[in-house]
Amino acid sequence: MTDCIFCKIVAGDIPSSKILETENTLAFLDISPVNKGHVLVIPKEHYETLTDIPDDLLSLVVKDMKKVAVAVMMATKADGYNIQMNNYASAGQVVMHAHFHIVPRFKGDGFELWPGREYECGEAESVMDDIKSEVK
Amino acid sequence: MTDCIFCKIVAGDIPSSKILETENTLAFLDISPVNKGHVLVIPKEHYETLTDIPDDLLSLVVKDMKKVAVAVMMATKADGYNIQMNNYASAGQVVMHAHFHIVPRFKGDGFELWPGREYECGEAESVMDDIKSEVK
Repeated sequence: MTDCIFCKIVAGDIPSSKILETENTLAFLDISPVNKGHVLVIPKEHYETLTDIPDDLLSLVVKDMKKVAVAVMMATKADGYNIQMNNYASAGQVVMHAHFHIVPRFKGDGFELWPGREYECGEAESVMDDIKSEVK
Repeated sequence: MTDCIFCKIVAGDIPSSKILETENTLAFLDISPVNKGHVLVIPKEHYETLTDIPDDLLSLVVKDMKKVAVAVMMATKADGYNIQMNNYASAGQVVMHAHFHIVPRFKGDGFELWPGREYECGEAESVMDDIKSEVK
């Protein structure tokens, strides 16, 4: 897409710190890292969100993401890492070209996960039934 | 693994609100949801983190995850969703059986992503080189 910043990075029209490039996948440093070594992994072809990416392509992207995750851990000497994908603006997606974040994590780096709540009595069953009925 | 809570859920020894079960994958409600409809997707076989899951199995799990993500969006009428995977304790992994979170998101639900920082001059190139040298 002509107005997509990640498509421009794929095309080489915008510079990036490339970590891995294959036929289908590009991995490059996030320019605004949560921790140093924070990498984005994208399908080179433009798809907006996770569910838009065809299964065969997604398999290749995720396989490459595993490789990069190992390299991030080794290079940054991280104690762990988060994989995150924000789908749609309400989930924090800013660039509308599907991308996985690999965020290296370190003991005591202070980033907190969102808190969980509790279902009321019978509520989980109702939510479960609603979701199951939508699985195609 | 005998002491793994998710293996016990797979075996049926601990109850869960199952959304989808295939030969290789199980999806069920997180009992402590960030938002209602928060689902966990796991390979039924025990693997600790993302990079431990064999590529072929991961492809199947991710394919099923896409299906469930669509169903979560439809059933909860969410405006978006996050995919999150916490690998190792320092990244917030509590159950050491690899699992993807699907967190439905709603406009104004108030959950913030972690803030990004900036690389100093020349630092990104150095980090890039370190990670690239570890990609196998």
